[in-house]
Amino acid sequence: MPPTLLHIDTSPRPTSTTRRVTAEFAASWRAANESGTHLHRDLATTPVPHINAEQIAVTQRIESTGLRDLAEARAAARTPAERETWSTTWKLVDELLAADTIVLGLPMHNFSLPATFKAWLDRVLIPPLVVDPETGTGPLAGKQVVVVTARGGAYGPGTPRHGYDFQEPYLRAALGMVALADDLSFLHAELTKSAYVPRLAGFQRLAAESLKEALEGARKHAQRVHL
Amino acid sequence: MPPTLLHIDTSPRPTSTTRRVTAEFAASWRAANESGTHLHRDLATTPVPHINAEQIAVTQRIESTGLRDLAEARAAARTPAERETWSTTWKLVDELLAADTIVLGLPMHNFSLPATFKAWLDRVLIPPLVVDPETGTGPLAGKQVVVVTARGGAYGPGTPRHGYDFQEPYLRAALGMVALADDLSFLHAELTKSAYVPRLAGFQRLAAESLKEALEGARKHAQRVHL
Repeated sequence: MPPTLLHIDTSPRPTSTTRRVTAEFAASWRAANESGTHLHRDLATTPVPHINAEQIAVTQRIESTGLRDLAEARAAARTPAERETWSTTWKLVDELLAADTIVLGLPMHNFSLPATFKAWLDRVLIPPLVVDPETGTGPLAGKQVVVVTARGGAYGPGTPRHGYDFQEPYLRAALGMVALADDLSFLHAELTKSAYVPRLAGFQRLAAESLKEALEGARKHAQRVHL
Repeated sequence: MPPTLLHIDTSPRPTSTTRRVTAEFAASWRAANESGTHLHRDLATTPVPHINAEQIAVTQRIESTGLRDLAEARAAARTPAERETWSTTWKLVDELLAADTIVLGLPMHNFSLPATFKAWLDRVLIPPLVVDPETGTGPLAGKQVVVVTARGGAYGPGTPRHGYDFQEPYLRAALGMVALADDLSFLHAELTKSAYVPRLAGFQRLAAESLKEALEGARKHAQRVHL
């Protein structure tokens, strides 16, 4: 079966750094997978609705019974309001299940994820996708995940701001919970504030290098060349 | 001047644990501050809109000039679309500026904050509120902040899940950026899943104790009795 790429953008800016890098990834992936399906979801233009009391009622019912079968979970909503929110959720879950490769464009907002992405995560991370402690695996295992970030400053190991990176450690934990962290890579384009904050202008060369590396990383990861 | 309490709830469930504890806090605070103003914002019933390209354009303009004056920042929007989003932001910023005490009800969703709260944070954490590196302080300094969480499991120091707590460390960093972490307390009601997950039923007594402690903490913090 031809492979599927799930490509999620979240930046509110149409010409953002993360969009540039995820677009490079998608172009390289399409070139390498000509018969593949490229599914693009833009959470900035089309945010998913926040979870509600009905979604929580359904997920708590599933957790209370320990249900893991996906077909049964899909049918777990009971009231009309539950069915409505649950069908919104499953549209997103089905995209995730269908994907072989997932690329996420996530600008750093206040040291963390865009709220639109957290809304998506809270929709899709439903109990039957969680790694089964008995088998150590789950229905999303085996997918390649590439996270593209853009950050105003530098947050890498050894920098003063390293402890303020609540993107990468958080995503390793949250995606790991649903078996999406086994083949997980990060491409960080840093120091983007150097473009418009005068006192940071001296970092523009480093910012350009960081972006260049992210773009190269995107091409290589999209073509699965060993780095 | 009589004091103001800003009380923010986020749980999608009308009868949630965090709502019970923040309500206890608000009741005790009102009893201790009879002439005070109790401002209640419910982000579940009335979410704030996600930030957009116009909000980012205004904040980047402010950052590029290093503007710190609040009156000038309030007037920094230029186009009609910028003015619209910026006035939404300032309604929330004004509530924050007016508050003497802030109580936040934040159920843990996937190890982190509800997306509705991140949307609020990304709206209100605007550059002129950030701590000035020259003075070490900012316009929000001096406020009491109490964060009430509810968690399915236990995430305290020494528990296996401690490293998965992306609420408290994150909020210390994000609120600290705007001088809201000098007088910051956390009340965690834990093990709430024991109420409906049969294999966790043995933790119900601990969960009840944790809730009792959170409610006691809420009363004490609201009355500013030394603990």
